[in-house]
Amino acid sequence: MASSNGDALPAPADPSAATAASADGTPGAGPPPSAAPADPSVVVTPWEVSGIVDYSKLIQQFGSTELTPALVARLERVTGRPAHHFLRRGIYFSHRDLDKMLDLYEAGQKFYLYTGRGPSSVSLHLGHLTPFMFTKYLQDAFDAVVVIQLTNDEKFLFSKETKRPLEEFTRLGRENAKDIIACGFNPEKTFIFMDTDYIGSLYPNVLRIQRAVTYNQVKGIFGFTDSDNIGKHGFPAVQAAPCLSSSFPVLFGGRPDVPCVVPCAIDQDPYFRMTRDVTPKLGARKPALLHSKFFPALQGDNTKMSASDPSSAIYLDDTAKMVKKKVNKHAFSGGGATVEAHREHGGNVEVDIPYRYLTFFLDDDVELDRIRAEYAAGRMLTGEIKAALIGVLTPLVEGHQARRAAVTEEVIDRFMAVRPMEL
Amino acid sequence: MASSNGDALPAPADPSAATAASADGTPGAGPPPSAAPADPSVVVTPWEVSGIVDYSKLIQQFGSTELTPALVARLERVTGRPAHHFLRRGIYFSHRDLDKMLDLYEAGQKFYLYTGRGPSSVSLHLGHLTPFMFTKYLQDAFDAVVVIQLTNDEKFLFSKETKRPLEEFTRLGRENAKDIIACGFNPEKTFIFMDTDYIGSLYPNVLRIQRAVTYNQVKGIFGFTDSDNIGKHGFPAVQAAPCLSSSFPVLFGGRPDVPCVVPCAIDQDPYFRMTRDVTPKLGARKPALLHSKFFPALQGDNTKMSASDPSSAIYLDDTAKMVKKKVNKHAFSGGGATVEAHREHGGNVEVDIPYRYLTFFLDDDVELDRIRAEYAAGRMLTGEIKAALIGVLTPLVEGHQARRAAVTEEVIDRFMAVRPMEL
Repeated sequence: MASSNGDALPAPADPSAATAASADGTPGAGPPPSAAPADPSVVVTPWEVSGIVDYSKLIQQFGSTELTPALVARLERVTGRPAHHFLRRGIYFSHRDLDKMLDLYEAGQKFYLYTGRGPSSVSLHLGHLTPFMFTKYLQDAFDAVVVIQLTNDEKFLFSKETKRPLEEFTRLGRENAKDIIACGFNPEKTFIFMDTDYIGSLYPNVLRIQRAVTYNQVKGIFGFTDSDNIGKHGFPAVQAAPCLSSSFPVLFGGRPDVPCVVPCAIDQDPYFRMTRDVTPKLGARKPALLHSKFFPALQGDNTKMSASDPSSAIYLDDTAKMVKKKVNKHAFSGGGATVEAHREHGGNVEVDIPYRYLTFFLDDDVELDRIRAEYAAGRMLTGEIKAALIGVLTPLVEGHQARRAAVTEEVIDRFMAVRPMEL
Repeated sequence: MASSNGDALPAPADPSAATAASADGTPGAGPPPSAAPADPSVVVTPWEVSGIVDYSKLIQQFGSTELTPALVARLERVTGRPAHHFLRRGIYFSHRDLDKMLDLYEAGQKFYLYTGRGPSSVSLHLGHLTPFMFTKYLQDAFDAVVVIQLTNDEKFLFSKETKRPLEEFTRLGRENAKDIIACGFNPEKTFIFMDTDYIGSLYPNVLRIQRAVTYNQVKGIFGFTDSDNIGKHGFPAVQAAPCLSSSFPVLFGGRPDVPCVVPCAIDQDPYFRMTRDVTPKLGARKPALLHSKFFPALQGDNTKMSASDPSSAIYLDDTAKMVKKKVNKHAFSGGGATVEAHREHGGNVEVDIPYRYLTFFLDDDVELDRIRAEYAAGRMLTGEIKAALIGVLTPLVEGHQARRAAVTEEVIDRFMAVRPMEL
């Protein structure tokens, strides 16, 4: 998993973002996004997201299916619990075969969930967190087994720092496992694996998938070139293999037919389009998918969250003070240029990072609605909506840190142990 | 290992072969070799050998070094035992850094030997046997650890039978292990591993090698194309990884610097040229190489030993009767067209398969010389030289079968157990 809703950042959903200015009282509230790109073409691959992302068009382009309110309502009925706010608010907006998985589930057939993380930083940031929050919700709602792949091999092969040793990505993977475990996954039903540890079990399916895919195909899907290293060409099969339950012979007692559901950011879809092309040839079931939109960087759309620029994202190991400072100083504001203008015209919630972050992390629909209305009307100021966000993020980050601190090496080993699991 | 001196067959070393006719009394003594090819270009890759192989030119083309009588003599002095007849007769004719390995050995530094087998048939044939006979000699001469790779992954990825399941190549690999063990390797110092079993230990070095090699490079070395499956592109790193002693952390107690010597047929050189390019970048030592000429098919040069045509090769599970019949019926003869012509002009030992097989399997130099002189002078007839070969091959094959029959599943497991070894 290269970005898993994190490393790659999208362009504005609304080009008007380019004209929005800051009403933030604090200095240096982040650069304005660049002017609307001259080239409207959209690139969405696991390693690059650029151009203006129109999510409806992306559904057409990728050939996925809209995740409709009706399907969300059905999911609520099937699970007997309210939908996660990521579903209610269209943050997860697209799917493949979710309806079929609900059919199977209603017929008594359990599926497992598969997600992952490409370890590239010691701590996750908020964007990295969201797929795990959502997967944890799905685990609870469906009482499902979760498998989580740590792709230290991918990060090693794809890193631009070609001297960085493999061991470093392994170490980061283990650090990331702490953040993942701190999301509250059920230890009885969650298996976390590092590719270099678990490749022995994956390898037969990796080979089967590799034999069924040509270089021409991955070139078309991922944009690989002839000067790429040869590990990159074969890697998509390593990310695809966990979609087959036979890759987990101990977990699933050798069952080759357990259905798989993958929640991921839409930029990971190429991997799973390829997987869904291949699985029928291997006599295996196509994985179902749930696609999220991208999580924006602190500086707003068309900027990138980058590990080399700590101010571009809020990390889960940031102190309360840092969270406050980052939000106040760097969060791109959709407010008016002056307090007066803001009072008159209101804030632009489409581009306002504090508001958009609240849609991700404030579960309370009523309160979110109130904030949106107040801010859009100009009655709530930028400083106030930032304070609201800080009020939500501080306990979230501090709570996460407390849970992470409780994750000992033994706890990680327990989550990473290859063991039978009850579906 | 795709061919390891077996699957791929060379063209005549001497174009005069094309004019040699048969003096064999038995009917159907094999088709004459084709006329000298119009295209003199030579292709030697692990998957294809075609054109007229001039081994001196191959040394120039590949940039390897001639294995001179002086170096063979030094090897005898260093090991304190006579050189194997493959060395005395120039069947192993080329090397890379063997002199350096002898320097190290004299300075007290032990190396390990690495060879392998791509499992594509239940039984090995004589051509497959020769690298193992030679490696066993080297093991004894240098008291060296031997690691033997069974590339079931390679055969799965490269097989033209794209529906053949992985399990079949695994099963063949285990069958082949019996033949390999029957060659008499020292159980205390020999580790045989199946790639799908052992990939977990190889994988870190596979990744390191893959990151250091581009598709452009393997395209140039191996002739891969864009419509090849993506597993092929990455596979060369799997065959390269055992050249690094760090791929055997248990065997060598974590030592990353144990030198490696690879005996192999010259068609495998591209893998190790690539390996020798990469190892310095990884801070590892270049493997040394010993190259053999190709083992000819029963029907002579420019024909192929093929598992789908059992008469093209003598298999180690052939009965004495089959050996006799195959030699008499199918071994291409360099004898005269009639007994009278043979008595007058003599036999052509350059193309005569019975004679050439004797150079591989008759250890006695004096007797071989006598046969050569008698046959070339026309005093020995084709039927007689065939009988001499049958006299050598029958005990060889029957002895092999007896030793193979003693190889139980437990014995295989012992050779395949990951265990510490004394250098």
